[in-house]
Amino acid sequence: MSDQNLRGFDLWGAPFDGEASLGWPGSRYAPAKVREAARWINMRIQDGRIFRLETNQIETVGDNLLVDRGDIQVAHADTETTFNRVSEAVAGSIRNKRVPIVIGGDDSLLFPVVRGVHEALPGRIGIIHFDAHLDLMDESDAQGRLSQSSGMRRSLELDRIQAADCIQVCERHFNFPSSGQFKFDHGLAHISARQVLKQGVDATLEQVFKQVEGADHLYLSFDIDAIDPAFAPGAGAHEPGGITSAWGLEFVERLAPYCSAMAITEVNPLMDVKDMTSTLAAYLAFTFAVAGSKAAAPGPRR
Amino acid sequence: MSDQNLRGFDLWGAPFDGEASLGWPGSRYAPAKVREAARWINMRIQDGRIFRLETNQIETVGDNLLVDRGDIQVAHADTETTFNRVSEAVAGSIRNKRVPIVIGGDDSLLFPVVRGVHEALPGRIGIIHFDAHLDLMDESDAQGRLSQSSGMRRSLELDRIQAADCIQVCERHFNFPSSGQFKFDHGLAHISARQVLKQGVDATLEQVFKQVEGADHLYLSFDIDAIDPAFAPGAGAHEPGGITSAWGLEFVERLAPYCSAMAITEVNPLMDVKDMTSTLAAYLAFTFAVAGSKAAAPGPRR
Amino acid sequence: MSDQNLRGFDLWGAPFDGEASLGWPGSRYAPAKVREAARWINMRIQDGRIFRLETNQIETVGDNLLVDRGDIQVAHADTETTFNRVSEAVAGSIRNKRVPIVIGGDDSLLFPVVRGVHEALPGRIGIIHFDAHLDLMDESDAQGRLSQSSGMRRSLELDRIQAADCIQVCERHFNFPSSGQFKFDHGLAHISARQVLKQGVDATLEQVFKQVEGADHLYLSFDIDAIDPAFAPGAGAHEPGGITSAWGLEFVERLAPYCSAMAITEVNPLMDVKDMTSTLAAYLAFTFAVAGSKAAAPGPRR
Amino acid sequence: MSDQNLRGFDLWGAPFDGEASLGWPGSRYAPAKVREAARWINMRIQDGRIFRLETNQIETVGDNLLVDRGDIQVAHADTETTFNRVSEAVAGSIRNKRVPIVIGGDDSLLFPVVRGVHEALPGRIGIIHFDAHLDLMDESDAQGRLSQSSGMRRSLELDRIQAADCIQVCERHFNFPSSGQFKFDHGLAHISARQVLKQGVDATLEQVFKQVEGADHLYLSFDIDAIDPAFAPGAGAHEPGGITSAWGLEFVERLAPYCSAMAITEVNPLMDVKDMTSTLAAYLAFTFAVAGSKAAAPGPRR
Amino acid sequence: MSDQNLRGFDLWGAPFDGEASLGWPGSRYAPAKVREAARWINMRIQDGRIFRLETNQIETVGDNLLVDRGDIQVAHADTETTFNRVSEAVAGSIRNKRVPIVIGGDDSLLFPVVRGVHEALPGRIGIIHFDAHLDLMDESDAQGRLSQSSGMRRSLELDRIQAADCIQVCERHFNFPSSGQFKFDHGLAHISARQVLKQGVDATLEQVFKQVEGADHLYLSFDIDAIDPAFAPGAGAHEPGGITSAWGLEFVERLAPYCSAMAITEVNPLMDVKDMTSTLAAYLAFTFAVAGSKAAAPGPRR
Amino acid sequence: MSDQNLRGFDLWGAPFDGEASLGWPGSRYAPAKVREAARWINMRIQDGRIFRLETNQIETVGDNLLVDRGDIQVAHADTETTFNRVSEAVAGSIRNKRVPIVIGGDDSLLFPVVRGVHEALPGRIGIIHFDAHLDLMDESDAQGRLSQSSGMRRSLELDRIQAADCIQVCERHFNFPSSGQFKFDHGLAHISARQVLKQGVDATLEQVFKQVEGADHLYLSFDIDAIDPAFAPGAGAHEPGGITSAWGLEFVERLAPYCSAMAITEVNPLMDVKDMTSTLAAYLAFTFAVAGSKAAAPGPRR
Repeated sequence: MSDQNLRGFDLWGAPFDGEASLGWPGSRYAPAKVREAARWINMRIQDGRIFRLETNQIETVGDNLLVDRGDIQVAHADTETTFNRVSEAVAGSIRNKRVPIVIGGDDSLLFPVVRGVHEALPGRIGIIHFDAHLDLMDESDAQGRLSQSSGMRRSLELDRIQAADCIQVCERHFNFPSSGQFKFDHGLAHISARQVLKQGVDATLEQVFKQVEGADHLYLSFDIDAIDPAFAPGAGAHEPGGITSAWGLEFVERLAPYCSAMAITEVNPLMDVKDMTSTLAAYLAFTFAVAGSKAAAPGPRR
Repeated sequence: MSDQNLRGFDLWGAPFDGEASLGWPGSRYAPAKVREAARWINMRIQDGRIFRLETNQIETVGDNLLVDRGDIQVAHADTETTFNRVSEAVAGSIRNKRVPIVIGGDDSLLFPVVRGVHEALPGRIGIIHFDAHLDLMDESDAQGRLSQSSGMRRSLELDRIQAADCIQVCERHFNFPSSGQFKFDHGLAHISARQVLKQGVDATLEQVFKQVEGADHLYLSFDIDAIDPAFAPGAGAHEPGGITSAWGLEFVERLAPYCSAMAITEVNPLMDVKDMTSTLAAYLAFTFAVAGSKAAAPGPRR
Repeated sequence: MSDQNLRGFDLWGAPFDGEASLGWPGSRYAPAKVREAARWINMRIQDGRIFRLETNQIETVGDNLLVDRGDIQVAHADTETTFNRVSEAVAGSIRNKRVPIVIGGDDSLLFPVVRGVHEALPGRIGIIHFDAHLDLMDESDAQGRLSQSSGMRRSLELDRIQAADCIQVCERHFNFPSSGQFKFDHGLAHISARQVLKQGVDATLEQVFKQVEGADHLYLSFDIDAIDPAFAPGAGAHEPGGITSAWGLEFVERLAPYCSAMAITEVNPLMDVKDMTSTLAAYLAFTFAVAGSKAAAPGPRR
Repeated sequence: MSDQNLRGFDLWGAPFDGEASLGWPGSRYAPAKVREAARWINMRIQDGRIFRLETNQIETVGDNLLVDRGDIQVAHADTETTFNRVSEAVAGSIRNKRVPIVIGGDDSLLFPVVRGVHEALPGRIGIIHFDAHLDLMDESDAQGRLSQSSGMRRSLELDRIQAADCIQVCERHFNFPSSGQFKFDHGLAHISARQVLKQGVDATLEQVFKQVEGADHLYLSFDIDAIDPAFAPGAGAHEPGGITSAWGLEFVERLAPYCSAMAITEVNPLMDVKDMTSTLAAYLAFTFAVAGSKAAAPGPRR
Repeated sequence: MSDQNLRGFDLWGAPFDGEASLGWPGSRYAPAKVREAARWINMRIQDGRIFRLETNQIETVGDNLLVDRGDIQVAHADTETTFNRVSEAVAGSIRNKRVPIVIGGDDSLLFPVVRGVHEALPGRIGIIHFDAHLDLMDESDAQGRLSQSSGMRRSLELDRIQAADCIQVCERHFNFPSSGQFKFDHGLAHISARQVLKQGVDATLEQVFKQVEGADHLYLSFDIDAIDPAFAPGAGAHEPGGITSAWGLEFVERLAPYCSAMAITEVNPLMDVKDMTSTLAAYLAFTFAVAGSKAAAPGPRR
Repeated sequence: MSDQNLRGFDLWGAPFDGEASLGWPGSRYAPAKVREAARWINMRIQDGRIFRLETNQIETVGDNLLVDRGDIQVAHADTETTFNRVSEAVAGSIRNKRVPIVIGGDDSLLFPVVRGVHEALPGRIGIIHFDAHLDLMDESDAQGRLSQSSGMRRSLELDRIQAADCIQVCERHFNFPSSGQFKFDHGLAHISARQVLKQGVDATLEQVFKQVEGADHLYLSFDIDAIDPAFAPGAGAHEPGGITSAWGLEFVERLAPYCSAMAITEVNPLMDVKDMTSTLAAYLAFTFAVAGSKAAAPGPRR
């Protein structure tokens, strides 16, 4: 494959945790920490090539694989303006034929990121949502309509995003009956973390691809708490029973060619153990870029 | 199933670590920390129903599923009196047709909890003992007869508790030859953590059910160090090679319907990483209650 | 098997992190911490016997299984002299018919340890190299020729050590194309952490034994970062996607009978969580000794 | 002095850190932590009396000294509504003839607390402002008008609050020339931490009382970073050169009789060392209540 | 002064925290940690001499200044036997013409240590008691009669120990009225931490010497929480407003020549920040030995 | 004073801890951490002016006050080359009429920094050496001649540096008699931390100025452990009894006008509590620059 066919990636920081109304605040510090680690990995590229131990191959990724676009400006106490800027950044990258990777920030960013994708790309947009939680709350006094608990709900209100093109992965434990009812009513599927752990990466990916095969474009939303707190203690909450970092990396790698955008959210340096989670997030982002540099079309024949 | 057939659960704190003579002290602080997290999960119940992501079902659990009974009073420097109170609390709950869940405290509590079960219930009592250690020491100068190292030994001295109805799960590494000899002599079986990790949850449960099929009632004793320190750093000791939190939760869930009581011991907030282990313990307790609300009889035909 | 056929082990501390030019310094404190834990496990031996929960057997290991030889003297700012002393210590143990276990220190020690083996034993020496990294850098301004990044490279320059008799296990993520090219040119194989996680311990060991079957003697080099930072946070770097501590222990146990020396490197108490990693390292060392007390010859018919 | 002449105190939590736009977030967790410690101290009162080691006297404080009024409800993403509720709570306590102690929350709360005082009490209101920072920013894109950097500025815009009746204590280090100019223009005085450390508690208090002698009522605003991070690591920022906890306690004790309200802000449990700072904050609050139970009129003849 | 006139010191560990019923447990680990640091300082002695920077002198201390006598055996769950052994160790050292320094353990040890002094020495025994707390509780259900809260109370029941020969230093904050009444009734004096901080080391020592001038022998009991948690975070509780480590060291140094025994209690490695407090305790012990090697008689003319 | 008379400062990082043979390694990470904080303070300058709360004045410092010159390249395992580069950097700044501020790195850097001053400036060079330790070791097997324990010793071997022009401040506790003897023999004076704490900043500075009045140029060497570990936990060792951060800042501020260079060493982010010490170091550096921008000639009439 020649260089000109390779996709390039934009790394955007979104240092916003103003909607972390349930989880621990602190994800505002993630972009700086992740960026530091990501730069360090980035330099392994020499002459547009990199050696991958998982594939035992020297792969061509181009010289411009992952470009740091800096932080998106947060508007003080104004979630809507902040979200608008996030959507613009995402849409801008896509219109420039590049793939945006947004480092949050809390998981309320799920919505403005997918909205940016929705603005820049035509057709049906599917969401692959890795998370310990459903993020399906409609609205509440304590959290409003745009919080970290409502990202998926808001996204499903966009024109060309429907539950049938989305899937949630790694959700676990208990929730309100009303959230369950919403899922049943809208046909929104999930694969629980337990199911993922039982069936493995291959079977899970097959299920994911099957679910989203009607989508024209895919967005990968990765809340770090999809991964177990043992591997990712620097998160917005500690939900035991998650997947390993190894599987998180493999999921991201194998989904990357099919995705037009990615966000990594809820990485929380204030809760981290020696930056272990920021380092993991940097690997997730960089892996997404390397593996996603050779795009593949979403659809039934993957 | 109608509500009146559902079992209710009593949450008892036993803030006693006076017999933590080998491991780190500090489990005295576990009840307060676990209770805090457990309350928060508890509120997910609405109108006696809860949505479980693992089953993808809205389940009926009743409105009175898990009642906090507060802390059992520790008698100063008097293990026997303390143990008597623990046994009474446990027996009292059972006599009230409720299922006690005791949050230790150190693992010496294994004995008074099972003694309470033994007092309140007739027939053969079996123990399913998750732990990294055997707890089979008879007596020593440094630890006496009632320490965290002797709980299983003391329990086997009760009238209707015999090794043939018990099984130890997740024990690992090395021990004194004399402890091994005791196991051989009494026919006390264990499934090492390595074996559990190799064969998985299903095969392990089959082995467990087979072993305890002669018991009329079962008690589940869960020392948090059955789980690997990566997932449960807030423990009485760090024994590498344990199971994941995901499996710990699944074991508890699937054993719950068959068990008449449970204790979670050795959760140590002084050693914890951001309350990760207290949160896990709360999930273990709550999962036991939700899954155990529909009782199943122990015995060979499970 | 009679006692006189059992191998004895020497525990050497090498408190040297002067070549930790890329990773975090602090492994100089590992010998003291690991020794403390190892002594405690060591006392489980009674009358030359120990009970192992993984085998459910009381095993004869002799009364002299693991002897603490103290710390090797580090020469100030003089890596070569330090390395000479390490090689001498290792060679000395082997000449005394004992098996050296070296607790580093940083992973530059890979080289002087294998050089000691090479000096004391004839024939082809194979290296089984557990590590997240390749350690194949030739030389750089910032790190010189003897750093923690060059251990494997230097080792392959010894007369009777050839890539065909070596294998790297658990390496992962990205590297410079030039390092990949070196591997291709010399036929140095690795099994990535992901591959290990997919295929399991048995298949991996088969692959390892196959690779090193031409070696007359084997050296096991274990950089603690082969294990995931969730299980071994006290390391020189945090590389997500590693193996569990359970598997680390099993690998060491099953390789031990075939190995003439072992080093455990990059355990870093300054980065550790409550000495979790030092405890793991002590178990790795002690497990190597117990399991390795009954030697087996390396070669194709294992 | 008879009991009926003693003042009673209301403890309000204000778990709001939505305006912590410059400092670390996390003060939302302070009320719960401080409350826990404060309750424990509170129980030392027996029969309306308490023994104070500093005075070596058994003092009468009444049976109703410090009443926990719970947390003020935070309005999601709506600082103004939140502030209104804070002002109402404060004004309500004062109208009930009680003295409010507000546990923040971030230091933006300075403004709504003093506004509550201003609403409930007539005449000139003076502010004694302990803080490492000036909080005099007018407005900025990044922080808006109501942030933790603007509390003093906003307060000075209230009708009956003028710089001449206020004093800032423990401010230190560097600031923008424009902030200095504002102070010069409005005659807002401060005593730097260095000056406090040099001249001691007595001379500082004399200076404070002199400055505020024209005020009819006084409000004590205590940002925990007035105290050095060595003593109060759980803060919104680490500004070296602060006062000791001992002096903090003495200042509060001696100012208490003259003050009609107090707030303690920027206690941040996420940054704390073993809850050291929450414990200190509880002592500050309780000391304020005990010492302030016997009111003294503010004015020139103190 | 010739060597034979110099006093020698015995360092005893008392790893007992079984009466830490109110404070955090963990002081059982202090002897090991303090010993490690103390050994390191001890080696500064060359040819019986040491250089002190505070005096700018090379001082003769003899070659046998501080001898590690190991740990006193704790009797499991048997405070009285443990206390008997502590008293014996202390009395034994004194009878051997050496000065015992006991490293606790919790502060219940105050009593058995002074009892050992009382057994070995004739006449009136005075106690200089540095502590944040009074330790005057008579008895309670939750704590019994021998807990860390009763040490001073029990000591005052010994024949030749009377309140008039004792003084408490650094106590602070609030207490039960009944404890105050006990002090008034028995004439037990204290100098609060605030008073110490105000008047300085010289004035405080003068007050101390004045109070204890009728004693024939003095015992120095040093609960580490006399020092502020900023300097000694590894304690049994965090009581703000304590003295600095510098003053703690100076008090110990200047009292040493007059004292026949010392205990340092409540050093808690589980709560410490990087062993900061264990290091301080080692300096307190070693300073006591160096400064106390030249004895001075207690009495009015000091 | 017009701008052109103001001195400018160069901030150099020296990320070298290869001679931290006794203290904890990790000061290699200090320059990055300190730089981050220093930049943030630096931006408070507007139009060449800054407001200082300690002086309550808007001061002119110029627009080019503190220029980050980046990190000095460390030569792998080659202390001499590294030192040469440090000396060159320092000398270069001075020759450019700027004042170098070096952020270590370990305290072995004392020597190459003063050597750079010595190379660039004529006449007698005096050293004001803030440190808990003497750094007077000549040479040892374990540490060589250039370690963090020998910096002052090596410096005194330079032509125009004599003990009579130097003074050590804040040294404390015990040392080898031989080190004391060296001080006596060479007339090297110190003011112990205790003496500093007793006499205060003014008297200490008077003593310092008196001692160094014969020097033509002064170098300020500031090992962070001069400050107590309560205020500066991120150090190379924890020596209780140090000065406060407030006094550290004041000493630096008042010495700055007379000094031609400064180094801050042994700041250790690996040991720090939430970057508290790096923040302090940044304030020390920035304070040195602001206060030193108006130079004063060293000599007797200060």
